[in-house]
Amino acid sequence: MSGKPVPTPENASVDSVGGGVFRLPEGEALPLDSGARLTGLEIAYQTYGKLNPDRSNAVLVCHALTGDQYAAGVHPKSGKSGWWSRLIGPGLPLDPTRHFIIASNVLGGCMGSSGPSSINPATGAPWGLTFPVITIADMVRAQALLLDHLGVDTLFCVIGGSMGGMQVLQWAADYPARIFSAVVVASAARHSAQNIAFNEVGRQAIMADPLWNEGAYASGKTRPEKGLAVARMAAHITYLSEPALQRKFGRELQRDGISWGFDADFQVESYLRHQGTTFVDRFDANSYLYITRALDYFDLAQAHGGVLARAFTRARHVRFCVLSFTSDWLYPTAESRAIVRALNAAGCRAGFVEIKSDKGHDAFLLDEPVMHNAMAGFLGAADVARGLT
Amino acid sequence: MSGKPVPTPENASVDSVGGGVFRLPEGEALPLDSGARLTGLEIAYQTYGKLNPDRSNAVLVCHALTGDQYAAGVHPKSGKSGWWSRLIGPGLPLDPTRHFIIASNVLGGCMGSSGPSSINPATGAPWGLTFPVITIADMVRAQALLLDHLGVDTLFCVIGGSMGGMQVLQWAADYPARIFSAVVVASAARHSAQNIAFNEVGRQAIMADPLWNEGAYASGKTRPEKGLAVARMAAHITYLSEPALQRKFGRELQRDGISWGFDADFQVESYLRHQGTTFVDRFDANSYLYITRALDYFDLAQAHGGVLARAFTRARHVRFCVLSFTSDWLYPTAESRAIVRALNAAGCRAGFVEIKSDKGHDAFLLDEPVMHNAMAGFLGAADVARGLT
Repeated sequence: MSGKPVPTPENASVDSVGGGVFRLPEGEALPLDSGARLTGLEIAYQTYGKLNPDRSNAVLVCHALTGDQYAAGVHPKSGKSGWWSRLIGPGLPLDPTRHFIIASNVLGGCMGSSGPSSINPATGAPWGLTFPVITIADMVRAQALLLDHLGVDTLFCVIGGSMGGMQVLQWAADYPARIFSAVVVASAARHSAQNIAFNEVGRQAIMADPLWNEGAYASGKTRPEKGLAVARMAAHITYLSEPALQRKFGRELQRDGISWGFDADFQVESYLRHQGTTFVDRFDANSYLYITRALDYFDLAQAHGGVLARAFTRARHVRFCVLSFTSDWLYPTAESRAIVRALNAAGCRAGFVEIKSDKGHDAFLLDEPVMHNAMAGFLGAADVARGLT
Repeated sequence: MSGKPVPTPENASVDSVGGGVFRLPEGEALPLDSGARLTGLEIAYQTYGKLNPDRSNAVLVCHALTGDQYAAGVHPKSGKSGWWSRLIGPGLPLDPTRHFIIASNVLGGCMGSSGPSSINPATGAPWGLTFPVITIADMVRAQALLLDHLGVDTLFCVIGGSMGGMQVLQWAADYPARIFSAVVVASAARHSAQNIAFNEVGRQAIMADPLWNEGAYASGKTRPEKGLAVARMAAHITYLSEPALQRKFGRELQRDGISWGFDADFQVESYLRHQGTTFVDRFDANSYLYITRALDYFDLAQAHGGVLARAFTRARHVRFCVLSFTSDWLYPTAESRAIVRALNAAGCRAGFVEIKSDKGHDAFLLDEPVMHNAMAGFLGAADVARGLT
């Protein structure tokens, strides 16, 4: 297997940051849930820290819908901190002085991994809508190949929030022997009707944009930016809570008075518009279609005879930690409770903390001391059990 | 003042249905909150029942964002029952054998009242975005002119749900001497940041549609149907509750299996798409912009020195009934409680019922026996106090 050099016990320093693009060799293909086989698979990834001689300290960090592999440090495109830089760093729950932390861009993404904006090797043109529809399990299957490539047989921990948490659950179902511990934050074992409904609004907003051009915009000079911005605006509301929006913006105006028109009069309007317009600079509309589809298709119980506990029967050795936020209405606490009940029913050991926060779903990306402490406690104990400290 | 003939005590039968279009005489204008003056005002209305000789039995029914004047009976365009036909009819809480029930299309609407799709009398062309921006208070001001035209000095009751409830509150603030009782259902005294955010998504979806053409589509052959459909889809989710969506649709598929594509796989997707495509047949995109703007501008306390109770100090003689639904997350019960507290602080008499329902905001349009009984009880007692029975 090919790819750029990656850190090894021999060449990496404690604060080393590595990464590159893993490429599936020619002639090999990734089998997908749809029955299709994806050739030319590429998975872009970042690493923080070094793999120890026992190869026992690897952590896979799984990102959410619009996240990417830049979980820590500084994002090379935005110049902002990585999306989980509050949790990854020396002295933090995920510590590159102790852990070998891997984060990869999901299959279907647009930050270097194979997705609809990638080039189809068979045609030399962007895939567009000819890219095969993928699932959360397909994303995880690609991650497993990346771990093979990195020489990681067993993960000390697989961890993620939101869609990242779904990947964690899928790991526990499909590769239980390869994980020691698992942390699921602000997530769910299936997409609800309301989750699907909001995603469908986003997809319809994109597909309503004439510049979307049935997904074949990559060959032109224009992209469906307006549609994608509307999709992001609708989704962004679901990431926040009503009280947080009220506290942050209330009915505060942009200017001294209202415009008596359709400009952004209220600060919340301006904020939402900004969320939309900045999003289109960093995200691909077709990726948005594919990844939301993977989310909507996600139903871990359904793949196990309708009984969620059966997904975890081979994961009794895994230490689970499940975290939810009281004001998260995208993936409410009830969804986390269903996961914990299934883990208990399967005989797995699972800790669960419902964290009081008014910040909504996005709390998993924010400064939430209780989340920080819960992870530090869980991972610290797991470190000891794994012999990492 | 002009307009078609309306039912009078002399010419109306008990089950009479009347209505027409009230037109402000030439030379007169409706003063608006923006400072503009609207000439050529037309208000389309329906009536059910007859005005009694005392002119003491008139009820004004106020509709929500996408409602209209066809509150009872059969809608002439859709062929379906009027939106509150469960509550208006012989033996029902609003009874045309006892009450003279008036429902008018709001100012800014698209069912016959003046709005952006109307003809600007000064130019002979559709107003489009040159129509003045309006408020809930402007809607109520136009309704008051309609009542003058109909010979109704005092309303036995003003009643409405959602945006209709806001009009009721505005009546209590602006024309307290003209109302005897008031019923506010599933409403709020101001739009929250989240309310504004969802409306802004809808407006952006419409304005992102190139066929919107800066609002000047009326002169062409095409309308921004895709944008309006996306706006409706996003809004429609807020009218339902997560449990109701889950119960009604869950993850049920349209066909035996998933499509591995972007067709509507899930029933909830198909339902939402249907909501979008049917909505564009009956609603105007510019009206959607104007009415959502009126909603967002609505803040009854702000117009009274920031103290909501001050809006009601002249309404101490009015009997109020406030109803909310437990699963309504568009205008949650907390908003109704704030109204009731303000009414109490102002010294008004107010009954309040929080109705247990999992149907979300739309419960006010559905078969909710507790709502029905609460209205029947409140209106029955008011009938007695008013001498109508």
